[in-house]
Amino acid sequence: MGTNEVVGHSEQRWDAIAKVKGQAQFTGDFPFKNLLYGKILRSTIAHGRVESYDISEAEKVPGVVKILLPEDLPQNKYSTAGHPWTLIPEKQDIRDRTILTRDVRVYGDDIGAVIAKSELAAIKALEKIKVTYKEYPVYITPQQAMADDARRIHEERDNVLASSKVGFGDVDKSMAEADYIIRENLSTSVQQHVHMENQIAVAYQDADQRWTCVSSTQIPHICRRIIAQAVGVSWSKIRVKKPFIGGGFGNKQDAVVEPLVVAMSMACNGQPVQLALTREESIAYTRTRHAIDYNFAIGVKKDGTITAIDCDVISNQGGYASHGHAIGGKGGTFINAIYKMDSLRYTAKTVYTNIATAGAMRAYGMPQVVFALETVMDDAADKIGMDPIDFRMMNRRPDGFYNAMSNVKQINFKVGECLEKGRKEFEWDKKMAASKQYKTGVKRRGLGVAAFSFGTAVYPFGLEVAGARLILMPDGCFKLMLGSTEIGQGADTALSQMAAEAIGVPFKNIIRDSFTDTDIDPYDTGAYASRQSYVTGFAVKEAAEKIKAKILTRAAKMYDVRTEYIDIIDGNIIYMPDGERLATLEDIAMSSYFDMKDGKTITAYSSVNIHQTTYASGCTLAEVEVDMETGRVKLLSIMNVHDSGKIINPLIANGQVEGGMAMSIGYGLSEGIRYSKEGRPLNNNLLDYKLPTTMDLPKLEHAFVETDDPLGPFGNKSLGENPTVSPAPAIRNAVKNAIGIGINTLPLSPENVYEHIQAQQKGDVQNV
Amino acid sequence: MGTNEVVGHSEQRWDAIAKVKGQAQFTGDFPFKNLLYGKILRSTIAHGRVESYDISEAEKVPGVVKILLPEDLPQNKYSTAGHPWTLIPEKQDIRDRTILTRDVRVYGDDIGAVIAKSELAAIKALEKIKVTYKEYPVYITPQQAMADDARRIHEERDNVLASSKVGFGDVDKSMAEADYIIRENLSTSVQQHVHMENQIAVAYQDADQRWTCVSSTQIPHICRRIIAQAVGVSWSKIRVKKPFIGGGFGNKQDAVVEPLVVAMSMACNGQPVQLALTREESIAYTRTRHAIDYNFAIGVKKDGTITAIDCDVISNQGGYASHGHAIGGKGGTFINAIYKMDSLRYTAKTVYTNIATAGAMRAYGMPQVVFALETVMDDAADKIGMDPIDFRMMNRRPDGFYNAMSNVKQINFKVGECLEKGRKEFEWDKKMAASKQYKTGVKRRGLGVAAFSFGTAVYPFGLEVAGARLILMPDGCFKLMLGSTEIGQGADTALSQMAAEAIGVPFKNIIRDSFTDTDIDPYDTGAYASRQSYVTGFAVKEAAEKIKAKILTRAAKMYDVRTEYIDIIDGNIIYMPDGERLATLEDIAMSSYFDMKDGKTITAYSSVNIHQTTYASGCTLAEVEVDMETGRVKLLSIMNVHDSGKIINPLIANGQVEGGMAMSIGYGLSEGIRYSKEGRPLNNNLLDYKLPTTMDLPKLEHAFVETDDPLGPFGNKSLGENPTVSPAPAIRNAVKNAIGIGINTLPLSPENVYEHIQAQQKGDVQNV
Repeated sequence: MGTNEVVGHSEQRWDAIAKVKGQAQFTGDFPFKNLLYGKILRSTIAHGRVESYDISEAEKVPGVVKILLPEDLPQNKYSTAGHPWTLIPEKQDIRDRTILTRDVRVYGDDIGAVIAKSELAAIKALEKIKVTYKEYPVYITPQQAMADDARRIHEERDNVLASSKVGFGDVDKSMAEADYIIRENLSTSVQQHVHMENQIAVAYQDADQRWTCVSSTQIPHICRRIIAQAVGVSWSKIRVKKPFIGGGFGNKQDAVVEPLVVAMSMACNGQPVQLALTREESIAYTRTRHAIDYNFAIGVKKDGTITAIDCDVISNQGGYASHGHAIGGKGGTFINAIYKMDSLRYTAKTVYTNIATAGAMRAYGMPQVVFALETVMDDAADKIGMDPIDFRMMNRRPDGFYNAMSNVKQINFKVGECLEKGRKEFEWDKKMAASKQYKTGVKRRGLGVAAFSFGTAVYPFGLEVAGARLILMPDGCFKLMLGSTEIGQGADTALSQMAAEAIGVPFKNIIRDSFTDTDIDPYDTGAYASRQSYVTGFAVKEAAEKIKAKILTRAAKMYDVRTEYIDIIDGNIIYMPDGERLATLEDIAMSSYFDMKDGKTITAYSSVNIHQTTYASGCTLAEVEVDMETGRVKLLSIMNVHDSGKIINPLIANGQVEGGMAMSIGYGLSEGIRYSKEGRPLNNNLLDYKLPTTMDLPKLEHAFVETDDPLGPFGNKSLGENPTVSPAPAIRNAVKNAIGIGINTLPLSPENVYEHIQAQQKGDVQNV
Repeated sequence: MGTNEVVGHSEQRWDAIAKVKGQAQFTGDFPFKNLLYGKILRSTIAHGRVESYDISEAEKVPGVVKILLPEDLPQNKYSTAGHPWTLIPEKQDIRDRTILTRDVRVYGDDIGAVIAKSELAAIKALEKIKVTYKEYPVYITPQQAMADDARRIHEERDNVLASSKVGFGDVDKSMAEADYIIRENLSTSVQQHVHMENQIAVAYQDADQRWTCVSSTQIPHICRRIIAQAVGVSWSKIRVKKPFIGGGFGNKQDAVVEPLVVAMSMACNGQPVQLALTREESIAYTRTRHAIDYNFAIGVKKDGTITAIDCDVISNQGGYASHGHAIGGKGGTFINAIYKMDSLRYTAKTVYTNIATAGAMRAYGMPQVVFALETVMDDAADKIGMDPIDFRMMNRRPDGFYNAMSNVKQINFKVGECLEKGRKEFEWDKKMAASKQYKTGVKRRGLGVAAFSFGTAVYPFGLEVAGARLILMPDGCFKLMLGSTEIGQGADTALSQMAAEAIGVPFKNIIRDSFTDTDIDPYDTGAYASRQSYVTGFAVKEAAEKIKAKILTRAAKMYDVRTEYIDIIDGNIIYMPDGERLATLEDIAMSSYFDMKDGKTITAYSSVNIHQTTYASGCTLAEVEVDMETGRVKLLSIMNVHDSGKIINPLIANGQVEGGMAMSIGYGLSEGIRYSKEGRPLNNNLLDYKLPTTMDLPKLEHAFVETDDPLGPFGNKSLGENPTVSPAPAIRNAVKNAIGIGINTLPLSPENVYEHIQAQQKGDVQNV
């Protein structure tokens, strides 16, 4: 009652027209008077210490305003990681960096900065700065960095920055009970986010002498805190404003440029300074997906029962801690979430090296662990001769499973339904049969599947708060204020639909802009962990219910009826006993603004702290054709099936799924930053970093097992990151199915596949 | 308890440093990409109709984007007057204009517009537009416009746009009981506000296809409504943003440029368009103080008793209604507020003419009626040979007088104390005695006094609503969001002091910016009627008390104490039984943001509807020296004394008083727009419009009779406009005291005074 069913409809994104017409303003679009341009002086070694700078020639470049060395800026140690703050010191992120540094830990480290009146002058000056270094050994891999004689990358801390062990049961005993133990080594690549809009921020001093940072950030409120910590001011002295954003995928969940640009403005008496990374800088010197090495074993009985899983993880952190161990350490819970086993052991280490700092990236560790799990699962199914879908079906956790490792009951957990729907809609059995004729010759075909479980938001691991404010306008529209972050994913449209639904008005009655401002917008930690439609959704729902109650109270008084007899339906106040319209919402709104006697404007605010989560799941099915002569993998067809509860906006959900699939296909087939042994990134551009284009992709098929999740604010659960989890392992398994070789290193580039084929033909690898 | 006494201290304006450093951004300071420039095509006659436009040559000017004629823009009738909206149709402002018009009613009327890529191109194009008119008779004075054969200036309405009659008793009978009847004709001039920053606005289409108008307006929320009415869209489709403002004085209480600039952007597909008036346009074609003619009579007995006051008012409205009759019609209440009398008759007419439209100007009709009242009062005192202060003292309304005309009990009404303090501090008696030796010769000296009463805000005549929002920041600071308008007067500083006081924190803990945004800031009608420190003060107080209660509730829970035992003092949570600090406010704030279990951010919102007012009062004492040969009046000394309740910030209050006095000195001695008989303004620039400079002013002395008004939110009542009421009549009375000639027309320019001296010497006028 009172609903006009806005949720579930493919409403057009509120910003669609603006983006087509060019009216959506991104950080770089805002004109500033007397804008200065900052550029970062980057180290040309990966490990060492700057011994001297010679800036004399650089200072002479016309237009140069300031050249900053590490000692010119605040020396506070901070972390760039965009986690919600915690009051528990041992849970706080590792503060292992200063804004600029003489201690070089990665190639391209921030060892200085130039501020000039033009970008060109800044670049010219950079070129004229002479730096001498003392060089240290470079560690590309965790194994190098963990060697006994390895030098500490951070003096105050071991190169193993964290280690952990979780699980249950007696793994050794359970392994002994297995008929087969499949143990494999796997490794994933250094993927880059490659968001359309590079990192960019502008900082200036405000009229009240505080500091504003306009930034393309996923986490305005968290960013405020990080900047304040880095520059050493009280937190409210910083104001972060977020305009439209051209994607982030987790890279903008780190405050990579913001502390420096604020410090630059501070060094220039508050004049506005812009710091915009180039594509090359963004690829090579920001954050990446952690490359993780797995030693992964599954004990399995002939009947398909899994007795034990034993997983040892070594995560390559790169030069700075950033999100650190949170990524490598989290996999155990999700292995337990999806499959049955008697015992589980999950040990993990996160290790500093001298490659680019790894941080948050869409699905936050899940693509790695699911690649490992689904690879070994698939090989186990092969070992006992079971259909890989059947094997997963028989071992899947049932709906309602209590996951003791996260203390969460997995209500409404539909991975089985996803596998079944996928098998049917992908025509798995028909395609599998058809592919049998392509197991010889140059072009070989095969099918693969991979499944996954996925959390929603960060509870119970972290704080989950969100806020929403609604303001009734005189004409019956509502301004919706949020601290959550629209980064291109459509969050603002989905959250506006939720507000409209909960109040009882058409979608067009909700006014939203995409400009988040930490001074005035409700506190919300931002865009990550597929949390916003869930956690912020609760805040929107609560604020909507509050403002609705206030409106109905006022209407009841105005029309002398009992509050419980009236409701808001499609923007009208309806007297429910006879269904007649008592008034329009505008009538109530106008009275609230302009009634001489008791005109008082109506607003509502909610701040929610969510102590629950809900597990989503899904799977990918893929068919590939492998060219035995070139190693090239052609993706013939692919389908994702998602168990994400209620789909708030099918159109936007489709976009999320297709984008996520493309990202995981790139992960599976082509992407990865390569490093020279000196730690220099070798493919820091869009020509050499092989991002799939639309030309490289088949039709991205997908389906939903749509449910009304009882734990979701509107029946929904996570979806934003989920699509990027399972395509890569499904492709890996399809390649194995095609050519009989299980490749355990990502990406399955032509080079990688070709080498495996060559090795097999030479007898160097064992056929599965 | 819980106060750190921020109110009453001379805190430095929060924007002081920014204004010195040039960081305060005014509307014209914001850079816009692809900004277009609008200019208004103005009529070169004062009354008539445009018969034809020839824009062919203008269109050829390079850079011209669009030439708009009246029929190109919406034809909705609207009023520019910045009154709070009312749901009662008969109380709504007269809607007598469209955005552009072919019907010319004033010289410089908006008959077309040019939009170009540069201001210069727009000006060149304007010069090339040829217009032919049908001309009508021009009416400069109400008397001309009221003539039987006068043509209607607005076809649908009589030239007398409103008339009214208020009062009590039998005036004719009371007059008959007087020993003397002093009846005089008086007339005031057309004063201009001459705010430092001219009218300027920029409009563009927002990402959500709504329309934003950045404007130097005193009334952002009202302006939103007026623009929507003018362009014909639903009200929430308009968003008004107000940056720093360089003064308004009531001129920016009319939406003079905003509807046109929004219509211009609409005509250019939403591209940003700026419309900035020149000084010449601002002086001649915006709003003015109404020139009002009075026929004013006082009946007085020999003992000083006033038997009756009979006042007939004819107010010159100019070409459009704007604030209309509200100004001329309001005087009766305030005559009754200040002096005793048996009977009062106050009749008023407001009449359209063909001079510039009169609107709101600082003190809104009071300078005119007080000039008339205090002139005639002074002449009555002379008539019966009483000291003018004694005469006012004996007739003043006592503290606690019930004013039946406004239904207000004048609690805490201290006009008598002001007169007494003024007499003493100005050394009235000593100076009066000393001046007696300067009653002959070329340079003659004299003293004058004038008193006044003044309302606070617009209740009971109009709606009084305001709102405030407070947001607790993680470090214990508070963001204060207001819909009220800082226009240079210091409102934001005073209101921030109130918030600090009511919460119990230092002034520096309150964060305020001056950027009002109708989408997000609480609804408040804006800066006028000396209302903000009063009405918005109540909103701030309520919001502060709400947020304080929430903080104390949280603190009590955290520290397991009873809420009533703790208080916030100077930013700390104090356990009152022993006065010890339990925690800092930051401790509570951090917990509210980051406590895993029940972290929820703390904000408070208030929307108040104020059903009360309180009467302020005051007086001016002045000494002048008149040059009998040139008519030049030199102001030797002047003092204002104000009864304005508690002074929130003495430093800012001093600024208000000095500025107001200067404005009234200009009103008394030099200012006034002159018109040719064709209705053409003759002095539309700062050379010919004689605004006093600091060189023209003596020391502006002032004093307060400070009280703690029980009806004020912080003991305060109106002050912003009050200082500009009584200086002009005090000067007029001083001139009379010096030269023995009562001059009843403003300004007392050398020309005016000289002519009166000449006429007296020829015997044309009667000595008082």
